Amino acid sequence: MLAKHGFISALGRLTSHSPSSSSSSVLRRQEFLVRTLCGSRIHRPKLIRAMSSTSEADAENVLRIVTPSLDPKRHKGQAGKIAVIGGCREYTGAPYFAAISALKIGADLSHVFCTKDAATVIKSYSPELIVHPVLEESYSISQFSEEEKRKVQDKVLGEVDKWMERFDCLVIGPGLGRDQFLLECVSKIMVLAKKVNVPFVVDGDGLFLVTNSIELVKSYPLAVLTPNVNEYKRLVQKVLNCEVDEQNSEDQLRSLAKQIGGVTILKKGKSDLISNGETVRSVGIYGSPRRCGGQGDILSGSVAVFLSWAQQLKSSPESSLENPAILGCIAASGLLRKAASLAFTKHKRSTLTSDIIECLGERYGFLSY
Amino acid sequence: MLAKHGFISALGRLTSHSPSSSSSSVLRRQEFLVRTLCGSRIHRPKLIRAMSSTSEADAENVLRIVTPSLDPKRHKGQAGKIAVIGGCREYTGAPYFAAISALKIGADLSHVFCTKDAATVIKSYSPELIVHPVLEESYSISQFSEEEKRKVQDKVLGEVDKWMERFDCLVIGPGLGRDQFLLECVSKIMVLAKKVNVPFVVDGDGLFLVTNSIELVKSYPLAVLTPNVNEYKRLVQKVLNCEVDEQNSEDQLRSLAKQIGGVTILKKGKSDLISNGETVRSVGIYGSPRRCGGQGDILSGSVAVFLSWAQQLKSSPESSLENPAILGCIAASGLLRKAASLAFTKHKRSTLTSDIIECLGERYGFLSY
Repeated sequence: MLAKHGFISALGRLTSHSPSSSSSSVLRRQEFLVRTLCGSRIHRPKLIRAMSSTSEADAENVLRIVTPSLDPKRHKGQAGKIAVIGGCREYTGAPYFAAISALKIGADLSHVFCTKDAATVIKSYSPELIVHPVLEESYSISQFSEEEKRKVQDKVLGEVDKWMERFDCLVIGPGLGRDQFLLECVSKIMVLAKKVNVPFVVDGDGLFLVTNSIELVKSYPLAVLTPNVNEYKRLVQKVLNCEVDEQNSEDQLRSLAKQIGGVTILKKGKSDLISNGETVRSVGIYGSPRRCGGQGDILSGSVAVFLSWAQQLKSSPESSLENPAILGCIAASGLLRKAASLAFTKHKRSTLTSDIIECLGERYGFLSY
Repeated sequence: MLAKHGFISALGRLTSHSPSSSSSSVLRRQEFLVRTLCGSRIHRPKLIRAMSSTSEADAENVLRIVTPSLDPKRHKGQAGKIAVIGGCREYTGAPYFAAISALKIGADLSHVFCTKDAATVIKSYSPELIVHPVLEESYSISQFSEEEKRKVQDKVLGEVDKWMERFDCLVIGPGLGRDQFLLECVSKIMVLAKKVNVPFVVDGDGLFLVTNSIELVKSYPLAVLTPNVNEYKRLVQKVLNCEVDEQNSEDQLRSLAKQIGGVTILKKGKSDLISNGETVRSVGIYGSPRRCGGQGDILSGSVAVFLSWAQQLKSSPESSLENPAILGCIAASGLLRKAASLAFTKHKRSTLTSDIIECLGERYGFLSY
């Protein structure tokens, strides 16, 4: 995992704007940032504006704090190893977008676990990804007996499990499809991940699976769900037994996250809303009016990277920062919205998801490395 | 092979900065360069700084000397024919990175020998490569009898052997995977290469193979191993029966290379360390803090090209330069580190391995063509 690598200096770097660099001023600055992130009100006009009525998070600040410093002493893997579970005969773009976004943001290694049909195509999109053709869909085992099918499932799980502990975060769902046999395997992959405390972000068809089997994520604090309008609607109906209430969207989101035992939910929209059942944050900066498919995949890959970075930040003894999942969601949302805005400035209505991915790096321009 | 093509003029070119072009000054210049490369101390402040306490090699100078001049009279193949042995169902990016890097550096032809599954994908990355779908993994021959398996192995070896003498250097290991049947074939490919004195660079899963069967490379002076932190650790444990000693890393590396009978080892790290059991050189110039996967593949492809160029330089009667493997490692390390540094300047944390490959050519800017 990512322990002990640069997070102290990442926090330290932020103090460089302070006129004094004494340790007490460093400490005050860190406390200030911790309050900014974790919700305690403080009496500075800018922050009151940022935190109070709208719960708008200071996404740029979170992004700065969560991003580890780049240290030449570190070696491959220490800046993040992400795996996307998705990609089937029908869908190949979504898992690619999620996986390549993770690399563009700064992860060292990005894997994809998909079906054989999807693997050749996803590999051909980019030599940067490690693509494992291990998942199976019903059509390829339709002639098999129940016993043979069980063996195939065991084999799939074995192939994923041997890698599991190496990953800092999974993204489950982009381009997964809805094949029953495949979704059963993915349910069991979630169980494997929980066993060894690997966090996961659930999006797309992964949310279809989870909405119908909420126990798969219930009370797992390292699960993040990233629903769009329709996926959110189904979640609310299933879990809260009611319709979406746009008038009280923050309270409803908090209730939903609480009802699922404190998982973190990033509800995508004009402003993104984030809650773990306790606090609610929103990110409404930048963004683009272009709604081309695939932007949700960038987001899920980004949340995975920032969540794993934030988790290590939490374990730094110099920091009392909490809620790595919420921090990861804020950072990812801010990053995507800025990249989408940059891409839209360049390409206007012609903006494609690949154009936004190209802008993910530019977003980092404000960081001083 | 590359004999008699431009290496004399490569050395000669370096004399052009000398105020006198008499043959005695050419000779002095060559002796000066030989001492620079081969470790004899001389009393010029710059060289003392470059060579003494840190054993830091003058990588830029080595790069200049090793690189042959481009001569319109030469024909295709004379600037290098490289083959990568690697690429299986799971991995396709690594052999591609190694093979395309060899071309970008200046080799004329770059081949890949991989499995059928990998071949289609690697071909799709680039029309520049010659990709042979000849390797086999266990899963594709699982129904075969032992006799049939032996025939498959013979066929694989025949397919590689008919090309062997045409190659100036092999790169064994990028994306090879760990399939037992495939690794057995690759062991035998190493034996074939040694029979006809074709040098080879071993990286990635090739190092896994070699660490477990050290006799495959033992006492073969044309073998270069390029381990990263973890691969080096396993090599030290297996060969020296102890743990890595960071306090005495140069001595330990020398012992390791000596113990394996004088193979050359390039130990990758913050500074790269190179030894053949006699001398130890380090290359610490430039570099990048980004650790995205695939950079090791660029390095192995680069070592292959520079080693084969340096080998021809050695055979030039005008030069008494030695250690082509060490020269190749120094040049490749310096080149990769500069290219990585250039790519990082452009792309910062978003740098991908493909971005570094794009910068390999720019590195040559300081050369006069």
